[in-house]
Amino acid sequence: MNPLNDQQIIDSWQKNAAPWTTAVRENHIESRTLVTNQAIVDAVLAIGPKTVLDIGCGEGWLARELATHSIRVLGLDVVSELVEQACKTGGGRFEVMSYEDLAAGKLTERFDAAVCNFSLLGKESVDGIFNIMPTLLHTGGYFIVQTIHPVMSCGDQVYQDGWREGSWHGFSNDFTDPAPWYFRTIESWVRMFHEHHFHLTEIRDPMNPYTGKPASIVLVGRLNN
Amino acid sequence: MNPLNDQQIIDSWQKNAAPWTTAVRENHIESRTLVTNQAIVDAVLAIGPKTVLDIGCGEGWLARELATHSIRVLGLDVVSELVEQACKTGGGRFEVMSYEDLAAGKLTERFDAAVCNFSLLGKESVDGIFNIMPTLLHTGGYFIVQTIHPVMSCGDQVYQDGWREGSWHGFSNDFTDPAPWYFRTIESWVRMFHEHHFHLTEIRDPMNPYTGKPASIVLVGRLNN
Repeated sequence: MNPLNDQQIIDSWQKNAAPWTTAVRENHIESRTLVTNQAIVDAVLAIGPKTVLDIGCGEGWLARELATHSIRVLGLDVVSELVEQACKTGGGRFEVMSYEDLAAGKLTERFDAAVCNFSLLGKESVDGIFNIMPTLLHTGGYFIVQTIHPVMSCGDQVYQDGWREGSWHGFSNDFTDPAPWYFRTIESWVRMFHEHHFHLTEIRDPMNPYTGKPASIVLVGRLNN
Repeated sequence: MNPLNDQQIIDSWQKNAAPWTTAVRENHIESRTLVTNQAIVDAVLAIGPKTVLDIGCGEGWLARELATHSIRVLGLDVVSELVEQACKTGGGRFEVMSYEDLAAGKLTERFDAAVCNFSLLGKESVDGIFNIMPTLLHTGGYFIVQTIHPVMSCGDQVYQDGWREGSWHGFSNDFTDPAPWYFRTIESWVRMFHEHHFHLTEIRDPMNPYTGKPASIVLVGRLNN
């Protein structure tokens, strides 16, 4: 039995909410400031939504950024300390909600788009989000996922789906107990969309100008009619 | 002005038709025998076509393989020596035709699916194939492209579209004058499908069991209604 699981991801983020808020707000994460923040904003703006559900919103930077483009955002996160930070800073509505509660149908609003920005890290929790997603979007709505680039992040391990140990390599010493994460191949990500009533309209793999290599992958799916 | 161009690809294959036929027929190319031959066959069989257009068919192995599954194949290649080998061995119909002639509308048949198996190597020639593709398929037809994996093949160079020098590294000394090839990111490949009236139904990135890494990428697009 694999000891790595979805609950450990929540446990880790509960512990690291404070250093994470600092790292995001003080621009400590180079890949984000160089590439991936702009990449997710560009992907959202390209589809022109009026309302966005930000799942795993953390301390709320994406909601604040989208608010400057007149987009109304509801941010959800299971970590109450992060949601508290987001509420204090503003830019949208924020609520504490677990992926499990979301997947169980606790949220009854619909949105033009839903976004997961590096926030789909688990296994069953991610299945749950994809299952409920069609009920969270208006007709023709979009689901946008930015995640670690499968091929770039594969490292020495075999390129196949499975749990992996986490790491805070490159982060400050304030971070502890890194969360495990569930690795998915490009093939698996694409299949997730198609199996849950979405057709992909776009894949982006934005380049980090310093490394010359993809910094992430952004998958954009549209709900089938 | 970049000296690498589509014509050089044709020139190279004209020169290397004989060693290529030997390499394919005697299973000298490990990635093909281990992974990518089966990957393209699986992708074609998964959509269940009765008729297939094999663009850049070479000496005809894919047509022969699909013929064993009762699929009727027309194979096209600009290199007459390869088409001659394909005709001799059978398994389908084969014709000498350049991508430029195909793009100009010279072929008037329609097929359930078209396949390019490591045969979209150029720039303008590939644009031409995508432009004409909707006229070569029946309603709801599929276009299947297997190609070098962008991220795996990026090497030390910057991850962006552009011409690259070719190499016969790993091939026998009978090969000469390697063809240049036009590198495309995953983002660019996906955009090519969407800009030419296809929606992606699947992406596969089959793993080489020896390296544990993706051996190729297979993109499956379906013609929009």
